[in-house]
Amino acid sequence: MAKNSDTHSGWTISDLAVRFGGEVVGILEDVPPILRPAPLDEAGIGDIAFYADKRYTAVLAATRATCTLIPRDCTFEPAACAAFIKVDDPHRAFVRFLGMVDELRPKPAAGIHQTAVIDHTAVVASTAAIMAGCVVGARCVIGENVVLYPNVTLYDNVSVGANTIVHAGVICGTQTEIGERCTIQPGAVIGSDGFGFVENSDGSYDKIPHIGRVVIDNDVEIGANTTIDRSVAGITRIGRGVKIDNLVQIAHNVRIGEDTAVVAQTGIAGSTVIGRRVRLAGQVGIVGHISIADGVVVLAQSGVSKSLSEAGMYLGSPAQPHGNALRLTAVLRNLPDALAEIRNELHELHERTEPKSV
Amino acid sequence: MAKNSDTHSGWTISDLAVRFGGEVVGILEDVPPILRPAPLDEAGIGDIAFYADKRYTAVLAATRATCTLIPRDCTFEPAACAAFIKVDDPHRAFVRFLGMVDELRPKPAAGIHQTAVIDHTAVVASTAAIMAGCVVGARCVIGENVVLYPNVTLYDNVSVGANTIVHAGVICGTQTEIGERCTIQPGAVIGSDGFGFVENSDGSYDKIPHIGRVVIDNDVEIGANTTIDRSVAGITRIGRGVKIDNLVQIAHNVRIGEDTAVVAQTGIAGSTVIGRRVRLAGQVGIVGHISIADGVVVLAQSGVSKSLSEAGMYLGSPAQPHGNALRLTAVLRNLPDALAEIRNELHELHERTEPKSV
Amino acid sequence: MAKNSDTHSGWTISDLAVRFGGEVVGILEDVPPILRPAPLDEAGIGDIAFYADKRYTAVLAATRATCTLIPRDCTFEPAACAAFIKVDDPHRAFVRFLGMVDELRPKPAAGIHQTAVIDHTAVVASTAAIMAGCVVGARCVIGENVVLYPNVTLYDNVSVGANTIVHAGVICGTQTEIGERCTIQPGAVIGSDGFGFVENSDGSYDKIPHIGRVVIDNDVEIGANTTIDRSVAGITRIGRGVKIDNLVQIAHNVRIGEDTAVVAQTGIAGSTVIGRRVRLAGQVGIVGHISIADGVVVLAQSGVSKSLSEAGMYLGSPAQPHGNALRLTAVLRNLPDALAEIRNELHELHERTEPKSV
Repeated sequence: MAKNSDTHSGWTISDLAVRFGGEVVGILEDVPPILRPAPLDEAGIGDIAFYADKRYTAVLAATRATCTLIPRDCTFEPAACAAFIKVDDPHRAFVRFLGMVDELRPKPAAGIHQTAVIDHTAVVASTAAIMAGCVVGARCVIGENVVLYPNVTLYDNVSVGANTIVHAGVICGTQTEIGERCTIQPGAVIGSDGFGFVENSDGSYDKIPHIGRVVIDNDVEIGANTTIDRSVAGITRIGRGVKIDNLVQIAHNVRIGEDTAVVAQTGIAGSTVIGRRVRLAGQVGIVGHISIADGVVVLAQSGVSKSLSEAGMYLGSPAQPHGNALRLTAVLRNLPDALAEIRNELHELHERTEPKSV
Repeated sequence: MAKNSDTHSGWTISDLAVRFGGEVVGILEDVPPILRPAPLDEAGIGDIAFYADKRYTAVLAATRATCTLIPRDCTFEPAACAAFIKVDDPHRAFVRFLGMVDELRPKPAAGIHQTAVIDHTAVVASTAAIMAGCVVGARCVIGENVVLYPNVTLYDNVSVGANTIVHAGVICGTQTEIGERCTIQPGAVIGSDGFGFVENSDGSYDKIPHIGRVVIDNDVEIGANTTIDRSVAGITRIGRGVKIDNLVQIAHNVRIGEDTAVVAQTGIAGSTVIGRRVRLAGQVGIVGHISIADGVVVLAQSGVSKSLSEAGMYLGSPAQPHGNALRLTAVLRNLPDALAEIRNELHELHERTEPKSV
Repeated sequence: MAKNSDTHSGWTISDLAVRFGGEVVGILEDVPPILRPAPLDEAGIGDIAFYADKRYTAVLAATRATCTLIPRDCTFEPAACAAFIKVDDPHRAFVRFLGMVDELRPKPAAGIHQTAVIDHTAVVASTAAIMAGCVVGARCVIGENVVLYPNVTLYDNVSVGANTIVHAGVICGTQTEIGERCTIQPGAVIGSDGFGFVENSDGSYDKIPHIGRVVIDNDVEIGANTTIDRSVAGITRIGRGVKIDNLVQIAHNVRIGEDTAVVAQTGIAGSTVIGRRVRLAGQVGIVGHISIADGVVVLAQSGVSKSLSEAGMYLGSPAQPHGNALRLTAVLRNLPDALAEIRNELHELHERTEPKSV
């Protein structure tokens, strides 16, 4: 689906040291060029890795990486035919290297594949790439440099901002608005109907039409097979810079504040408002119609059933402040023994205090 | 993908009052026509909202909605250039308005898109709309007014009843039977193989062929990216009127009774039988081979490991009757302090009763 | 999408008895041929079922199955016009019958559908079936007898081993490698970007490019709408014989050992290493950067936050050894009463020991 440019001759360690503002440790003569990034424990010849955490010094000592990025204050020496580069932040430098490799990867060429079906009222930027099997509905607007990978479906009136990547199989319901520089992972569904029904007296349900929409601001990431429902009326909104992982459920009329991160398999029920810079760990559940304050962190598998109005860490189902939850966990771990011991003591006290029949 | 009919001139408040059997409050002279529904706190000029809950009287007082549906006994007065309509059930009236707007939306035109691939043995009603990229297998039967949105895949021998809407990217495995007036949200998978294996003596597994099928009765809703597995043999059945939310897992040979509702991210393991009018809240887990009685309500994140034979509310993992679970939650919230206090008292009693050495 | 071969005349009970090495019980004269498998309680004329568990003797007594597979030591007698076959392992024999029926089902014919889009640099075995709407990227390699059901998307450089079945709507990211004899259920996403970001000082995030890949060994099953993320660098690896259910999340750089089974809606966070023959039940959560020993069994809804270095069963959130967890559950079920009773006893002891004021 794109031109190959897998072959490149790599980077010299000197070149990398300059790019990262780093200092080389080791003798470079016999050191081969760097071709690929790799984890420290899997790296080999031609690989660059990083070391940033003292728990992994044994791994560093044993690594076969041709080059390892290390902190300035690290005094280790590289093996033969290998080198270290001392930098301020080894992880950041490694991520920069990932970006350099990513840059070299073939990008889809601009243009509309002949099997894509584009409504004649849609507007597609000439720099956008619309790949095979995509379907773009009436009055859609596709911005500059957008990529729609294969088999994407956009219903009518969807807009996709410049430089946004929409991966294969993504589905956007009518009137969905996606900002710039977003990445939508494969299989995500944005703008499905919310789960809303009116119960009849006989116990059956009538569907509430959902005629609102989803708005996704700039710089958002949506994970694979994640679902975001359209609102009843008004907007389900994902704020600027929000990062959402795979298989997350965002219900109708939810609003998520800027730079919030939501980890895999978490669910947020209808009309709940999540603040800015919130972190929801994996498999968290948040009930509907509550609000979560800026800066709240909810730990994995927690269940939040009431509004959280103060920043801080929360844990448990129902969620409580982290310190309380840890105390509870510690107590529970020992509870059967503790109760048995208490009963023993009570028994002993009973015996000791029992009125003696003489 | 459909003709545009976004432009319409709106409804007058008098007209709406007649339709809803309501009574107008306010002076209509300067009130503009109603164009859109909106939440009470987001509504503005041309919007209709509803007010039904006294917790929101401050929101009602501040609303900028041109029209608000309110209960008969509400004595508030509208702002200038706005009106209220008193009705028996403001939410119901609002839902009726949603339906009126929904009616105006463009519907896919009947016919088979030229890029759809329909097996020559399939039977498709002339009023059905089969959109771009759909694949319809051998001997499928597609009823009157059915819509298959883009990139739907039906394997062989699938039937879809009249007036059912199948959204984009839905996949139905062979022999799946879907009733009338159902809505299948995008990305749902119906009729994947169940998760069944026979373990060999060396710890490896042999796959059990799943040759049963999924039957979905009339008036069912299936959520986005939800998965429903085909049975080993026999039928995985979703009863009439069942409503299933997004990312729900229904395993092989499960049966769900009429008018039951299943909220997002809940999972039901193999061969379990769910009664009628059951409600399973979000992220609930139900083990296999049990049965849940009619009218049971299981609250969010609960885990049900034994059959529930009586209607009522259940909570917790393992789930227990709601009252018991609440008592437990209350006790747990205070447990570390309670144990510390008990130990103090024991200590004090010990000291008090200790035989004095004189 | 394939030729019909639904019509076949069935198997005689004598024939089945020979195939399964079994012994017929009952008079075969009036017994019709066997056409289909069915559950014992749903079976009727022409159906074969199995009975293996004494809890179901009442069901066996009432079954209308034309043939039932029973254990050697079972002394029940069949009804009129029905027969039993005594075998060593009724379930195994039933599974063999399922396989016989499955064999007769139409298989997709080899060849590339005219609507599939295959990059000219891809290599597709002549025995492979590439169905409608599939998109196969540059330099992909598709092995012998592979089936790609409709609307599958393979990015560039994906390889699929011989005899692997890839169901409709599956998406494989670039460089994904799938082994032989695997089954990938509909809608699964393999090789989406991992969820990794670097936090900036202003609280915003920079995306970490994920340039690693996913490798799936032979004989693996991946469930419907399951997501498996590509690694940052290196490999996310699913070992030989692993079985993964629907809606499971496998994060970047996870490694799963041979013959491990993962039930629906479970999530495994980044870089965690799962051993061989591990079983993770439904809705389990495993944090990142830990390791789970061979043979560990984690029960449903558990949360594992620390490495488990010993085989055995674990339960709870946080997970603990099963015996401890059961003791805790038993204590919790009674905790409110137990605490009330302890307080009563303390009160009584207090009263009994109170220094009397005379």
